[in-house]
Amino acid sequence: MSTIYVVGIGPGAYEKMTIEAAEALRSCDVIVGYTVYIDLVKDHFPGKEFMTTPMRKEVDRCVLAFEEAKKGKIVAMICSGDAGVYGMSGLMYEVGVNYPEVELKIIPGVTAAMGGGAVLGAPLIHDFCLISLSDLLTPWEKIEKRLLLASEADLSIVLYNPSSKKRHDYLQKACDLMLQHKSPETVCGLVENIGREGEAYKVMTLKELRDTEVDMFTTVFIGNSQTREISGKMVTPRGYKNV
Amino acid sequence: MSTIYVVGIGPGAYEKMTIEAAEALRSCDVIVGYTVYIDLVKDHFPGKEFMTTPMRKEVDRCVLAFEEAKKGKIVAMICSGDAGVYGMSGLMYEVGVNYPEVELKIIPGVTAAMGGGAVLGAPLIHDFCLISLSDLLTPWEKIEKRLLLASEADLSIVLYNPSSKKRHDYLQKACDLMLQHKSPETVCGLVENIGREGEAYKVMTLKELRDTEVDMFTTVFIGNSQTREISGKMVTPRGYKNV
Repeated sequence: MSTIYVVGIGPGAYEKMTIEAAEALRSCDVIVGYTVYIDLVKDHFPGKEFMTTPMRKEVDRCVLAFEEAKKGKIVAMICSGDAGVYGMSGLMYEVGVNYPEVELKIIPGVTAAMGGGAVLGAPLIHDFCLISLSDLLTPWEKIEKRLLLASEADLSIVLYNPSSKKRHDYLQKACDLMLQHKSPETVCGLVENIGREGEAYKVMTLKELRDTEVDMFTTVFIGNSQTREISGKMVTPRGYKNV
Repeated sequence: MSTIYVVGIGPGAYEKMTIEAAEALRSCDVIVGYTVYIDLVKDHFPGKEFMTTPMRKEVDRCVLAFEEAKKGKIVAMICSGDAGVYGMSGLMYEVGVNYPEVELKIIPGVTAAMGGGAVLGAPLIHDFCLISLSDLLTPWEKIEKRLLLASEADLSIVLYNPSSKKRHDYLQKACDLMLQHKSPETVCGLVENIGREGEAYKVMTLKELRDTEVDMFTTVFIGNSQTREISGKMVTPRGYKNV
């Protein structure tokens, strides 16, 4: 039985990868991935065969990985962040139904919520949720409902894919929904280029976030009712009782 | 200015730590942490000074770390999983207000949602939330509200601290709340001892989960309406549209 490693490489920088992820990439013959991610790891794993497919060709990329594994090669499929958070591991199981002779081994990694959270301070100490604003595969009504209910639940919220060329006003729409339940003074933060060149962060209020433009390399954090700014960092306390 | 590294060591096994986390622990003089976590890393970092405080002495542990840093030592404070997810980084910022000469550097890690998710398959591919069932620092009414709203939002849900000696029926209570909005056939999973000896997982329905006893070393995953069991694994698809 051959094995495919589905590897979360973390935010981008080599040292933010787990030791297990680096070992898997060193042990494999072929590394398959989206072009941008291959470029991030390439220099650290010389002598490997690299295979890429462009964005939106995810099913092709999975089939490619399985076909290489069938030839007897050890294959690693890489994803940025964690392979299981808006990543490829789910689709790999779906496509894998046609390849019962190939076993999948999922290697977790640091997703943008954790990587960006560390840059901002400690925004996710208590209950939180991740919501993607991309309506490519999810109806916008579903996203709206989640934003409203998560805000009503006083969860801290991390927004993935907050913007794109076609969706330049989505963050503003999302803020307007969250403002129905969260105070305009709610402490928020954003992190650009987590763990990559140009990493930067900003702490602001939800009211200010509403009027901020972000790009697709930004991860957005909205605090809960207890989140505070401490020494310029975004910090959510562990509890609601004063102990 | 002295620095304290606040380090998420991941689920437990050395190789599930990031390269950056291992480097920080190698570069420091003192490693501070809860006894159980110190035992997990001890053998991999010989020659370090280890300092522990028991559970519930978190503030003391933070003060200890800052006092050691003030002496000019390089200090690492370790947390299991990610330092920013129910971890110590928040409290470190709060206590740190009294130590303006000490800088904090947060090093993210693989939290149980990611580590356990990789064991179960791909349960968290789409929007999800983390909710802790511990009512030590959070009123139970707040936890109830979050469980209800997150279920209504059709989020996948990861439960941290699903049980303890005093709270043996909390998972059952949580399932009853989630069953108000989620189907009894919702695909769920649990993982024991993620990344440690005795690691085990089980996939089941929400109805079955309701009548399952878990211990405090278990992380519980509840799927969204699209989550399926594929080849014995728990898999949530990327989207809601059939593309």
